[in-house]
Amino acid sequence: MNERGYQLLQDTVERLLRRHATKNLTKILNKTHPADIAHLFRLLNDRSARQLFEILPEVESAPLILSEMEPRVRIDFFHFVDLKRAAEILSDMAYDDAADLLGDLPQELRDQILALMPDKDTEEVAELLSYPEDTAGRIMTTDFLNVPETMVAHEAVHEVRKAAERENVFYLYVTDGQKRLVGVLSLRQLVTAPDDTPMSGLMTRDVVKVRVDTDQEEVARMVSRYDLLAVPVVDHADVLVGIVTVDDVIDVLKEEATEDMLKLAGTSEEEISSFSAARSAKVRSPWLLIAWIEGVIAVNIIGAFEVQFNAHLQLFAALAAFIPIINGMGGNIGTQSLSITLRGLATHRIDPKHLWRVLSKEVRVGLMLGIAYGCLLGVVGYFLKQDVMLGVVVGIAMCTNMTIAALVGTFLPILAVKLKIDPAVASGPFITTSMDILGVSLYFFTAYFLIVRLAQ
Amino acid sequence: MNERGYQLLQDTVERLLRRHATKNLTKILNKTHPADIAHLFRLLNDRSARQLFEILPEVESAPLILSEMEPRVRIDFFHFVDLKRAAEILSDMAYDDAADLLGDLPQELRDQILALMPDKDTEEVAELLSYPEDTAGRIMTTDFLNVPETMVAHEAVHEVRKAAERENVFYLYVTDGQKRLVGVLSLRQLVTAPDDTPMSGLMTRDVVKVRVDTDQEEVARMVSRYDLLAVPVVDHADVLVGIVTVDDVIDVLKEEATEDMLKLAGTSEEEISSFSAARSAKVRSPWLLIAWIEGVIAVNIIGAFEVQFNAHLQLFAALAAFIPIINGMGGNIGTQSLSITLRGLATHRIDPKHLWRVLSKEVRVGLMLGIAYGCLLGVVGYFLKQDVMLGVVVGIAMCTNMTIAALVGTFLPILAVKLKIDPAVASGPFITTSMDILGVSLYFFTAYFLIVRLAQ
Repeated sequence: MNERGYQLLQDTVERLLRRHATKNLTKILNKTHPADIAHLFRLLNDRSARQLFEILPEVESAPLILSEMEPRVRIDFFHFVDLKRAAEILSDMAYDDAADLLGDLPQELRDQILALMPDKDTEEVAELLSYPEDTAGRIMTTDFLNVPETMVAHEAVHEVRKAAERENVFYLYVTDGQKRLVGVLSLRQLVTAPDDTPMSGLMTRDVVKVRVDTDQEEVARMVSRYDLLAVPVVDHADVLVGIVTVDDVIDVLKEEATEDMLKLAGTSEEEISSFSAARSAKVRSPWLLIAWIEGVIAVNIIGAFEVQFNAHLQLFAALAAFIPIINGMGGNIGTQSLSITLRGLATHRIDPKHLWRVLSKEVRVGLMLGIAYGCLLGVVGYFLKQDVMLGVVVGIAMCTNMTIAALVGTFLPILAVKLKIDPAVASGPFITTSMDILGVSLYFFTAYFLIVRLAQ
Repeated sequence: MNERGYQLLQDTVERLLRRHATKNLTKILNKTHPADIAHLFRLLNDRSARQLFEILPEVESAPLILSEMEPRVRIDFFHFVDLKRAAEILSDMAYDDAADLLGDLPQELRDQILALMPDKDTEEVAELLSYPEDTAGRIMTTDFLNVPETMVAHEAVHEVRKAAERENVFYLYVTDGQKRLVGVLSLRQLVTAPDDTPMSGLMTRDVVKVRVDTDQEEVARMVSRYDLLAVPVVDHADVLVGIVTVDDVIDVLKEEATEDMLKLAGTSEEEISSFSAARSAKVRSPWLLIAWIEGVIAVNIIGAFEVQFNAHLQLFAALAAFIPIINGMGGNIGTQSLSITLRGLATHRIDPKHLWRVLSKEVRVGLMLGIAYGCLLGVVGYFLKQDVMLGVVVGIAMCTNMTIAALVGTFLPILAVKLKIDPAVASGPFITTSMDILGVSLYFFTAYFLIVRLAQ
């Protein structure tokens, strides 16, 4: 559905909601694609969304709609639905989708709903929920086709045909007597095989697989690198327990890209998925506080120089006018280096082992740009204040500041990776404000040394 | 393969390269997964990579290896290979992969290679290359299964089985007498159907499809929203011309996420895919130049205030110490709002239609944080300088600056979307430096008005 389609759907649904035409609404919802209804909820205002939630339990595709819906939106559903009906809907979801949804609910509500679901479903979903967030175990589905290694090709074809009635079959996973994963077979390999060949004679033994505790980012990387449609998940004894399918990998990639970009700015996904201003302010606060403290340090440093320049207050005032441009350019180039490095690390295009190669390149970039913009600023400084030394000082400050900023923006995230901490802790606010401190210190020190001290 | 696996592979390959053991090397490359060899090239130094490129034409999986390899790496291959052999290798690639590779080569080289390929391949690849970059036409594959609407189920099963020997079959696309796409069928729908039902009686008529000129980002959004494994591509007459598969969608998503993050910092993908410092400097320069010009404007504004404060130079110097913190906090919160908004727009979680709702939330976030950090700074200002009015002025400046920055960081990208230009033109360097100008202007104006003028 395109934008016009959604507009039309939204208009129709809103009109029917105003008329309380529940029957017509249910009919429309039943014939619309579940993903489109899930998307529609984002377009509606709170009141309309609430009204629509009240009808949702009557819609056949409710399990699919809720699976597709964004966490922050669907959580509201549970305010309007009878818990028994909620449990029924969750039972009709794929286990991984049900686990994903329940994982976002408050513990108490989650337990109540789990208790109302059929035992078999409760067990499966609870097992998925027992794996930590962001691991393969949490996002895998336990619905997959596996065949014993002794099965022959024509029997396997029959199994595939049977399984295809229920689910998408991508690959056949072959297990041994202990349910351990021993091989994999594509449908292509299967259909071209003679009828009586056993799986063990057809399968690829070198299986790309992940463990239940593998980070979801690593899972996504595997699927993407080997162009897979699904990757098998094994437990610590190599027993096949699930598969992660490509649609879940796409969700992971989108989620991680968002996370990386927001961390860089010193905020998080939590903010984007909330409508509350207070909550957003809270999420952003920590990095802003650190930046604020660094800012106060900068105030004190400049204050200390002010005392040194007491006999040259005119000069100090002239120098002060250049603070924003020197800090700003340092911050800008630092953030550029930081983004390049973070993204390079995330996509594995920068290898932390090549630290020196990466650093030396960045330093050269910083130097080139620093010299260019430093010289330009030197000329401007001279013309504005008719003072050669002032021009020299602002030029030097700009150049050193830009070079150091490029270096720091590159080095900190790589250092973090080497220390095995999240490289995004070296976030934008931290880097730019640290560069502010270093920048003003070097700037006023250079000015003091070259102008005040040399003149004495 | 995990990191240790790559280390081992790298060590072995480097050892064999030193010994010029070409035969052993070819053997190893033949048994390693093409995606792993493609990755290996990133780990090698330039000299080893060159040596390995010389062997590559002898490796059976060369077409697959080159398909998986990053553009900046594989371009070197063409320095070491006989063009006739290159044409053979490209003929063995999937058409979309060949087009992707050739699209990165200089026009002249591209034409030479195309001329050496078999006519049929040249034609197919040239057609793909005729579509603009970043469109569905450019990334689609023309290898897909389509069946006429009059075909019956058991014949279609036979077709699937035959096609499965060559390629992954995800869906059956049903076309009419004019090759126009009229329906789609999943394998599941097919295997559960009675043998003699015609396609027209089984297929879903409401097909999710894209046009050859649809932007690749939109294609990715469709595939991700509807959890598809492939999406059909039609031309202007609705004739089915290709399909975009999920593995290509994953590449698009990764590419677009990188692009968004780097644009935010005022640089681009071009930089990450080059080893040259001069090139990186050139890519970063435009936004830095704009920021530099804005910085010079700020210098002049502060210079103008300096004249006004001529009789109060001590006060001016005291105020100057707070420039970095006021500018810095404005820049930080502005970048946060910008990232949230850009990412929200990219993932369609922020709808430009809800401009006022989004803006009003961001203004509240800015106000809350501005008041909090402004009050804190006011207290610090008072204690540092023992001057109540100075405390009041820096507090007000911090608060207004943070609020306005949050507003600007949200408004500019949404405005860009409404004007149908790329929201990322409102990049970080532009926003932070604009906020510097506005910030210092408001700051010194407030100080001048509240301290100098009121005292007169």
